Amino acid sequence: MSTCTSTEGQVIRCKAAVAWGPGKPLVIEEVEVAPPQAMEVRLKILFTSLCHTDVYFWEAKGQTPVFPRIFGHEAAGIVESVGEGVTELKPGDHVLPVFTGECKECRHCKSEESNMCDLLRINTDRGVMLNDGKSRFSINGKPIYHFVGTSTFSEYTVAHVGCVAKINPEAPLDKVCVLSCGISTGLGATLNVAKPPKGSTVAIFGLGAVGLAAAEGARIAGASRIIGVDLNSNRFEEAKKFGVTEFVNPKDYNKPVQEVLAEITDGGVDRSIECTGSINAMISAFECVHDGWGVAVLVGVPNKDDAFRTHPINVLNEKTLKGTFFGNYKPRTDLPSVVEKYMNKELELEKFITHEVPFSEINKAFEYMLKGEGLRCIIHMGA
Amino acid sequence: MSTCTSTEGQVIRCKAAVAWGPGKPLVIEEVEVAPPQAMEVRLKILFTSLCHTDVYFWEAKGQTPVFPRIFGHEAAGIVESVGEGVTELKPGDHVLPVFTGECKECRHCKSEESNMCDLLRINTDRGVMLNDGKSRFSINGKPIYHFVGTSTFSEYTVAHVGCVAKINPEAPLDKVCVLSCGISTGLGATLNVAKPPKGSTVAIFGLGAVGLAAAEGARIAGASRIIGVDLNSNRFEEAKKFGVTEFVNPKDYNKPVQEVLAEITDGGVDRSIECTGSINAMISAFECVHDGWGVAVLVGVPNKDDAFRTHPINVLNEKTLKGTFFGNYKPRTDLPSVVEKYMNKELELEKFITHEVPFSEINKAFEYMLKGEGLRCIIHMGA
Ligand SMILES: NC(=O)c1ccc[n+]([C@@H]2O[C@H](COP(=O)([O-])OP(=O)(O)OC[C@H]3O[C@@H](n4cnc5c(N)ncnc54)[C@H](O)[C@@H]3O)[C@@H](O)[C@H]2O)c1
Ligand SMILES: NC(=O)c1ccc[n+]([C@@H]2O[C@H](COP(=O)([O-])OP(=O)(O)OC[C@H]3O[C@@H](n4cnc5c(N)ncnc54)[C@H](O)[C@@H]3O)[C@@H](O)[C@H]2O)c1
Ligand SMILES: [Zn+2]
Ligand SMILES: [Zn+2]
Ligand SMILES: [Zn+2]
Ligand SMILES: [Zn+2]
Repeated sequence: MSTCTSTEGQVIRCKAAVAWGPGKPLVIEEVEVAPPQAMEVRLKILFTSLCHTDVYFWEAKGQTPVFPRIFGHEAAGIVESVGEGVTELKPGDHVLPVFTGECKECRHCKSEESNMCDLLRINTDRGVMLNDGKSRFSINGKPIYHFVGTSTFSEYTVAHVGCVAKINPEAPLDKVCVLSCGISTGLGATLNVAKPPKGSTVAIFGLGAVGLAAAEGARIAGASRIIGVDLNSNRFEEAKKFGVTEFVNPKDYNKPVQEVLAEITDGGVDRSIECTGSINAMISAFECVHDGWGVAVLVGVPNKDDAFRTHPINVLNEKTLKGTFFGNYKPRTDLPSVVEKYMNKELELEKFITHEVPFSEINKAFEYMLKGEGLRCIIHMGA
Repeated sequence: MSTCTSTEGQVIRCKAAVAWGPGKPLVIEEVEVAPPQAMEVRLKILFTSLCHTDVYFWEAKGQTPVFPRIFGHEAAGIVESVGEGVTELKPGDHVLPVFTGECKECRHCKSEESNMCDLLRINTDRGVMLNDGKSRFSINGKPIYHFVGTSTFSEYTVAHVGCVAKINPEAPLDKVCVLSCGISTGLGATLNVAKPPKGSTVAIFGLGAVGLAAAEGARIAGASRIIGVDLNSNRFEEAKKFGVTEFVNPKDYNKPVQEVLAEITDGGVDRSIECTGSINAMISAFECVHDGWGVAVLVGVPNKDDAFRTHPINVLNEKTLKGTFFGNYKPRTDLPSVVEKYMNKELELEKFITHEVPFSEINKAFEYMLKGEGLRCIIHMGA
């Protein structure tokens, strides 16, 4: 016996926003979405939002170009059908797809310290599904590639079951969709990785949604000073709502920002969290932490050819450097409880959502991000 | 009332091994050692040993040259006299001088996480005492510079009280002198900083005394595989006594040693500790740890112009990079208990001591280290 929907086992024809080449505006096309294979699920995406990681790989300036491709990885939806062997999800479940998965079998999934699943960790160069090395999307029989196993800029998408977190069906999907990447990433980078002690000073590099979620984490942890660093001074007003107490724009000084921070903090910050993707900010974020106890956490996605470069004495001086994907949350195990934080009002998501557009206007979301306007733009797939 | 010795308050004339220029054999000279000033103590050095840090600054290849200078920082002795304000030490106390001090007043000394005292942390470029910016050593009125506040290649030396740890007077000074730098540094780098979990795999880069003390720490912590990495294969036989279970000589492969280690450990080691001073080894030590949970600890003293360079994705992949001075031990607070580990036979020091020479043959100690022969050479000041 199986729950049948009219589309189960069938190819679905639906609308998707296809990126035909680097930096080219997305085009809404009719695509064919094949049924899920073994250990895969097909999702109906209801809401998706734009994260800077989509923009980097769409611009493909310092990244491997893979085109034509369907981007999108911050989203919420409902299971349409499941492939062979899938027992943890069923049609109708409310879910968040996640760019990094959890197979629950590998050394990483079994380790308490890591969320970098051997099988399902992020792979930005792969445009196909693991099961058969092929895409589930096509137009006239020609494949359109996947992005980080999610491709949520489509009314329907296929994901590995390990990349899909089942959440509380009461949670409003147009809000909790932002937990599927950016907000959880920033929050976890602070709470799970940087772990600022109460009363400490925290620097946040990059005041986009990820950085402001990191600031939110610092506020929750009881940091007494939260210093926001951004090249875009327009960010500063908004950032106050997220507990940021001071601002530094590196452009306002003619010395490295790590020196500016050292001066205003008596030698360096206790913790720093880099949420920009800029290699300069990564180096500054490391060098600005206090010697003896400072911890820097990198979150931004670097370019392929970037080099992190510092004098080894900075390391010897007892500064710690760490990095994290998805804030060290294990997506299937931990994400439902982050959703509950929102449901319990421990975590406010509304203030991250500054724009909403219908699917047909998805390119506007790209424009907002490129201009540094607002934080998250929710794309309504049904509209 | 004060305990008076015949020399208290007087200039002492004694023998010291003076380095007149970079790489030039030391010359035993008669020097004048001024009395200790406020917060200083004058020590009679009985035994000293040679650590690679002395050799680096004596060669001054990648370091600031400061000459003429009296090197030496791994030693044991007895307090001869104390300066104004010194209450914690008195003549006759058995002590270990330490290159990094503990004022007990600053933020670092008060923090549980740091041993990098603001006042007394290592400063390899300074050749004078803090109190008056002058040297206590002279020959015919011309100053001979200090080294890291210890200058133990002299029958008498002057140190800040914060750089002198009082130890159990029963401890044999010809053995515990090696705890004043190298052995404590390596041991602490593992036990206090890398903290390998039981059953883990640890790589040690550099199998000199510091590296083998780090290996000893890994054995004590219950590591199941301890992989020694050294360019000098002669180190391998000796290293077995220190719990090293496998060896890799990077010269035997035509790919980077981090790749060799990844292959034999299914993706990388759980912890690595770099004890070489080579920037290549520092980078390899970081890159060879397992993503998701690996921790690399740098101990080696780098050159002034070295650059630590890695792709930021290695950081993002949840590898942690740390560094340490003196194994994160606070010298005055913690060193007495490390001496007790030796007294209780938890820690064997004899196996680190491979050579002994009289003071007059101190240059032989340099030759042994430059040839990579043996581990520690004890220099008997009285002989
Ligand atoms: N590690 C992960 O799991 C993960 C997950 C999501 C996003 N990310 C990455 O996090 C970063 C932030 O994402 P977002 O969606 O918040 O982006 P965003 O564009 O909304 O915000 C980035 C901010 O950084 C600022 N910035 C850029 N260069 C800077 C510099 N040198 N110094 C100071 N500020 C600088 C920009 O002005 C902008 O305000 C991106 O690199 C993204 O790819 C990583
Ligand atoms: N951080 C601290 O507090 C502290 C304290 C003491 C010593 N040190 C430093 O620790 C290091 C070790 O000191 P030591 O006295 O044991 O020196 P040592 O000369 O006895 O041992 C160093 C070993 O490293 C090996 N080596 C050199 N380059 C290498 C490379 N690229 N790959 C692999 N092996 C390599 C050498 O062959 C040698 O066996 C030195 O850099 C020293 O300055 C640091
Ligand atoms: Zn994202
Ligand atoms: Zn896994
Ligand atoms: Zn030393
Ligand atoms: Zn101090």
